[in-house]
Amino acid sequence: MAYELHYWPTIQGRGEFVRLALEAAGSDYLDVARGGEGEGQGMPAMTHFLESPQVKYPPFAPPFLVDGKRIIGQTAAILLYLGPRLGLAGKNERQQLWTHQLQLTIADAVAEVHDTHHPVATGLYYEDQKPEAARRSKEFCKSRMPKFFAWFESVLLRNPKGATHLVGKRLSYADLSLFQLVDGLLYAFPKACRRALKKAPGVAALHQQVAQHPSVAAYLGSERRIAFNLDGIFRRYPELDG
Amino acid sequence: MAYELHYWPTIQGRGEFVRLALEAAGSDYLDVARGGEGEGQGMPAMTHFLESPQVKYPPFAPPFLVDGKRIIGQTAAILLYLGPRLGLAGKNERQQLWTHQLQLTIADAVAEVHDTHHPVATGLYYEDQKPEAARRSKEFCKSRMPKFFAWFESVLLRNPKGATHLVGKRLSYADLSLFQLVDGLLYAFPKACRRALKKAPGVAALHQQVAQHPSVAAYLGSERRIAFNLDGIFRRYPELDG
Repeated sequence: MAYELHYWPTIQGRGEFVRLALEAAGSDYLDVARGGEGEGQGMPAMTHFLESPQVKYPPFAPPFLVDGKRIIGQTAAILLYLGPRLGLAGKNERQQLWTHQLQLTIADAVAEVHDTHHPVATGLYYEDQKPEAARRSKEFCKSRMPKFFAWFESVLLRNPKGATHLVGKRLSYADLSLFQLVDGLLYAFPKACRRALKKAPGVAALHQQVAQHPSVAAYLGSERRIAFNLDGIFRRYPELDG
Repeated sequence: MAYELHYWPTIQGRGEFVRLALEAAGSDYLDVARGGEGEGQGMPAMTHFLESPQVKYPPFAPPFLVDGKRIIGQTAAILLYLGPRLGLAGKNERQQLWTHQLQLTIADAVAEVHDTHHPVATGLYYEDQKPEAARRSKEFCKSRMPKFFAWFESVLLRNPKGATHLVGKRLSYADLSLFQLVDGLLYAFPKACRRALKKAPGVAALHQQVAQHPSVAAYLGSERRIAFNLDGIFRRYPELDG
């Protein structure tokens, strides 16, 4: 039975980290909220799991994965579950936990990216928090983005199997997620991100290499890849790029 | 060999979620950065893992756990690792992943709490971001804290084994972490938190029940429990409590 991914249908958002893993592995999956209501999909299929009192293990928010009777929320937990099943985590518990630790650090970075345009509240519009967003973005571009990149660079350089992957010598979901983080930052903060990547050439190379992975490249060129836009986590507001 | 917990020695912070698990289980552990340098502990022992190029799997930040040759960073990953070893996660993979999913949602809440006093940048003082902190705290108290509590309340009410625990019918690290989240919010935002708990009586009851668990109560009454203070994640700035 195909995996069911439930996520907002018009943005990449956090769902994209799961989509990339499923696509890279060539896995059979349904992107449920983007499907037709006539086929039992669409938004009602997603909100059922968030709102129905019948659901014993409700997710807090999308994305969540439905695999038969199992419902798994939280992006990093979904990837922890899928990793070994898709061949995208290390080969043993130690590598799988390290892959997960990398993913959790990417999740921290993603949360900080979200708050560059929403430093006051998720429930308000960007237009209602522009001065705060300007200050936060400046600090993010100056300090945090370089700090995250420097750490991932050191992880690549210390990998006993070589600097082409974050974990061992094979593609993992951590590689895919770091690709997505960089790709999103290149969209949102093109100037600041290019500057930061100059000091993290291994991260830049990983980004390019993942984009050329056959399954990933096919996905990125397909209609299944939603374009970056001003509703997602990564948003291009030129006034914030410094 | 005792587990080594590495975390900042003067705050509860994110390390506290790990301390609570180790203490509740009666586990033998070293709180390394609080130990003496003469015994090979203290801050130098911690910074070694963050800074030495010899460390192949460096943590991004404290807390991290050292267990023999293993180094595990990220609070939620540490608890994922310790949970089954300490008898504080469910009995099978399904329950363990659910416990982890709950922990990741608590981690999201904790990150939002941190940003109530640091909405612009971690690297700046609170005094440098007070207007932004006032706006963010207002939104947090009004919307986010009640939303998180409502979700945990629904998780308790839907637990097939009863509403006294988040997972099954035994204490898990998710219960301990929810206790800590509530305890911290009662310190930081006493008015707003008491108001929110009135609508989440199961969460309030869990908080009280965990505090009375014999090992937890002994820990909370000991010198090992660092008091909440104005350097941690949960900070009491009366002007932010609304």
